[in-house]
Amino acid sequence: MIFYYAIQTVSVATQIALEEAGAEYEERLIDFRTTEQKSEEYLKINPKGRVPALVTHQGIITETPALLVFVAQSFPEANLAPLHDPFQFAKLQEINNYLCSTVHVNHAHKMRGSRWVEDDDEQSKAAMTAKVPKTMHESFDLVEKEMFVGPWVLGENFSVCDCYIFCISNWLAGDQVDLKDFPKIYDHHLRMRERPSVQKVMAIHKL
Amino acid sequence: MIFYYAIQTVSVATQIALEEAGAEYEERLIDFRTTEQKSEEYLKINPKGRVPALVTHQGIITETPALLVFVAQSFPEANLAPLHDPFQFAKLQEINNYLCSTVHVNHAHKMRGSRWVEDDDEQSKAAMTAKVPKTMHESFDLVEKEMFVGPWVLGENFSVCDCYIFCISNWLAGDQVDLKDFPKIYDHHLRMRERPSVQKVMAIHKL
Repeated sequence: MIFYYAIQTVSVATQIALEEAGAEYEERLIDFRTTEQKSEEYLKINPKGRVPALVTHQGIITETPALLVFVAQSFPEANLAPLHDPFQFAKLQEINNYLCSTVHVNHAHKMRGSRWVEDDDEQSKAAMTAKVPKTMHESFDLVEKEMFVGPWVLGENFSVCDCYIFCISNWLAGDQVDLKDFPKIYDHHLRMRERPSVQKVMAIHKL
Repeated sequence: MIFYYAIQTVSVATQIALEEAGAEYEERLIDFRTTEQKSEEYLKINPKGRVPALVTHQGIITETPALLVFVAQSFPEANLAPLHDPFQFAKLQEINNYLCSTVHVNHAHKMRGSRWVEDDDEQSKAAMTAKVPKTMHESFDLVEKEMFVGPWVLGENFSVCDCYIFCISNWLAGDQVDLKDFPKIYDHHLRMRERPSVQKVMAIHKL
């Protein structure tokens, strides 16, 4: 497998899951500084012009929640998801989907406002950027109070949700949100940093 | 099971899937005109203040991609997802996640701009609304050209992705996008409207 990623992006979540699974894969860095994600060559891998993307022998997979579950299903011995309990699996998916469709989207309004208004509309883009600390704080507050079971996100068992929340928790300082406002997620963040998989990926991403 | 929904929202996708699965459930309408989704009572069901939500005997599930897969896994005889092929399952999830995190989010910038800028910032909200026809056209163009296999979204087999794309395809006219610009999705939309499950749900939602 070949894993396409970019530094300090949401790629971190899937990369940690791949390491937790003991997967064998090659890494290919896509350089956002040169907008390589929009290059003709990379658009053949992912026409959406985003990372991550995983090339498998059956084809290419994108979208973090899809990739996280693919890793869990492909390496069942790593026990990264409650694969055989539809309700518990739905709770895993519920968190992953909240992270992708609400939390990541909130964060994206800081730097990627031109997805939703014209690129030269500096006033609207600044208005979006200004609200990010509030929306990210609210999102994490909801995760802390309503979703995080503990000690791991889903309870007693580590899962791909832990990889995903850890990934996004690294963005909070840049979004002017103090991770310590969320004691369970902060404690989780510290424990995640002790895992060899996380340390390997953090070194790649200079986190 | 109790299914909480609101008229002409993304609830339609899960409701069609429940009908396709032959699930037994009660329906509870949440009235967006009175902001019932933010009522104290409903926030106990879904603290996010959104629909849909499904109350099961094990607990409550939210988020459309989680619900769609839960329905497919809970009613395997309905064959609504390639549950035993991790790669094909990832392709299903990839589409569902693109729909929730990019397409639905694009659409939400028409009416829900105050999620991402201050509610009294009419100028920024209008700028967001103005770009929705462009972003929705681009999103559907990508689905048409890069994701939709045919005759169903994933190929020969009907799946929950068909329910989800059909649901969102009903929003395009209101977003000033012509569904006929996407011949495969337009044809799919017409075929979906012939299914008894869809006709039952359309009658509820006055679509």
